[in-house]
Amino acid sequence: MHRIAKAPASSANLGPGFDTLAVALGLYLEVEISDRPDGLVVQTEGEGSDLPRGASHLAARVVAEVLGHDRAHIKVRSEIPVARGLGSSAALAVAAAAAAGACEPFEWGVRTDGHPENAAASAFGGLVAAAMLDGEPLARSLALDPELSFVVVVPDRRLSTAAARDLLPGQVPHQDAVFNLSRLGLLVAGLADHSQLVASAGDDRLHQEARSALFPEASLLLEGLRDAGALTSCWSGAGPSVLGICTRDTSPSVAKAARELMSELAVLGDVLELPPDLGGVMVHELG
Amino acid sequence: MHRIAKAPASSANLGPGFDTLAVALGLYLEVEISDRPDGLVVQTEGEGSDLPRGASHLAARVVAEVLGHDRAHIKVRSEIPVARGLGSSAALAVAAAAAAGACEPFEWGVRTDGHPENAAASAFGGLVAAAMLDGEPLARSLALDPELSFVVVVPDRRLSTAAARDLLPGQVPHQDAVFNLSRLGLLVAGLADHSQLVASAGDDRLHQEARSALFPEASLLLEGLRDAGALTSCWSGAGPSVLGICTRDTSPSVAKAARELMSELAVLGDVLELPPDLGGVMVHELG
Repeated sequence: MHRIAKAPASSANLGPGFDTLAVALGLYLEVEISDRPDGLVVQTEGEGSDLPRGASHLAARVVAEVLGHDRAHIKVRSEIPVARGLGSSAALAVAAAAAAGACEPFEWGVRTDGHPENAAASAFGGLVAAAMLDGEPLARSLALDPELSFVVVVPDRRLSTAAARDLLPGQVPHQDAVFNLSRLGLLVAGLADHSQLVASAGDDRLHQEARSALFPEASLLLEGLRDAGALTSCWSGAGPSVLGICTRDTSPSVAKAARELMSELAVLGDVLELPPDLGGVMVHELG
Repeated sequence: MHRIAKAPASSANLGPGFDTLAVALGLYLEVEISDRPDGLVVQTEGEGSDLPRGASHLAARVVAEVLGHDRAHIKVRSEIPVARGLGSSAALAVAAAAAAGACEPFEWGVRTDGHPENAAASAFGGLVAAAMLDGEPLARSLALDPELSFVVVVPDRRLSTAAARDLLPGQVPHQDAVFNLSRLGLLVAGLADHSQLVASAGDDRLHQEARSALFPEASLLLEGLRDAGALTSCWSGAGPSVLGICTRDTSPSVAKAARELMSELAVLGDVLELPPDLGGVMVHELG
């Protein structure tokens, strides 16, 4: 066995689509697996290479589960920053499962990462809706306008999804639930055809505000992205990254404005301009 | 002036899409308007012809507002049952505004009826998402698979939308809000391509259960429609009508099963098999 699988990053919780809507982004990680009779070796390069290697590494756990043993040499090369709301663990789980030969990398990704919409985006690419139905993950693809480009503000600080989840309220006003539903309808229509996308289609009342406590500059960044020409803006996953949804034409000027705003707000980090990924996980057999 | 406008019925609150998602149905009403210097006359035929005619009739109110006077002869012919959750008042407002020469019958429909998703479906046809954004209605079209057919169970009893709305809870669990969001994503994907539509994509936790008090047989009908072969099922608007979303192939057998089930449950009413309406309101100038 010698395979490489490459999976894209993803932005989940897209706008009003908390735990529902995700888009795959053109930022990747690769997992390469070959037989190693002497037992497990994990090598890492790029983003996430500061995490502990060995049997506890997410890629090693997924590979061991798929293969039923751990006699493998695993190399991980990643461009996807960890704990920034860009679905790095879902991408890693999907790529590791695919590299180990799993037929359903989406399901393995959900099983080990727990976020069906991130795993669906990494597995299938494009825009996806996902849910857990009676404990089983289900994902469906939605139309995505290929003219769209994503400006991603990636602060240096890390934010744990679990900590972000603890901030969510137990109950919400009925009208806030409806607020998100109706924006989700508008957002899905606008992502299929960017000429139909309105800024408020990216608005949310179910998680962004509660989580702003962890990243108070977020609301200024979201507003600044729209002011700079993004069609709409929202958190990426549980943050702290935020996303400006742009056309390819406006993407460079929005990215420039985002860099200036980060500097003004003294937020350290990167700004990426990413196309959507449309193919999802890709596997290459090497022998 | 002599114009006829024809507008379709609609099912709003589609599945998880409370106050968000609606589909236009091939069931129509017509409003014909001609000048009448001696003042208002309202004539009605078909469904809704038991409602009081005169200046208080919804068509008369819309026409007077659009024209700025009430010197008109208004004829209304309707196939759309009133107060059954089929958007009859939105269709009437949209058709009356269009027949009176309004450029934006959607906006007139929202202004007089108050339900942007019903008005959007009647005005534009097809599948629509709508919302009120800072007090202004906005609607967007979504892809709709032309293979779909709608089996509509229309009980004889009437149900006021206002009474149905009073039953809604003020607060809902966060997880119920997310339940509807994620099903909405799956439903929109499934309505664009029926081969992707799963039954649970039509499920709801924001209004159907609370409203079941007004129509206890609804849950048995919803279940029976799915058992008979509907891809999914849900309430139509605020009820009491319920909807089986089928393919054209399965629609006749689902309709037959629905008639048998109504008889078993002793629910009086009709079962309609309707195609989606794809054109929305149509206007004919007659002179």
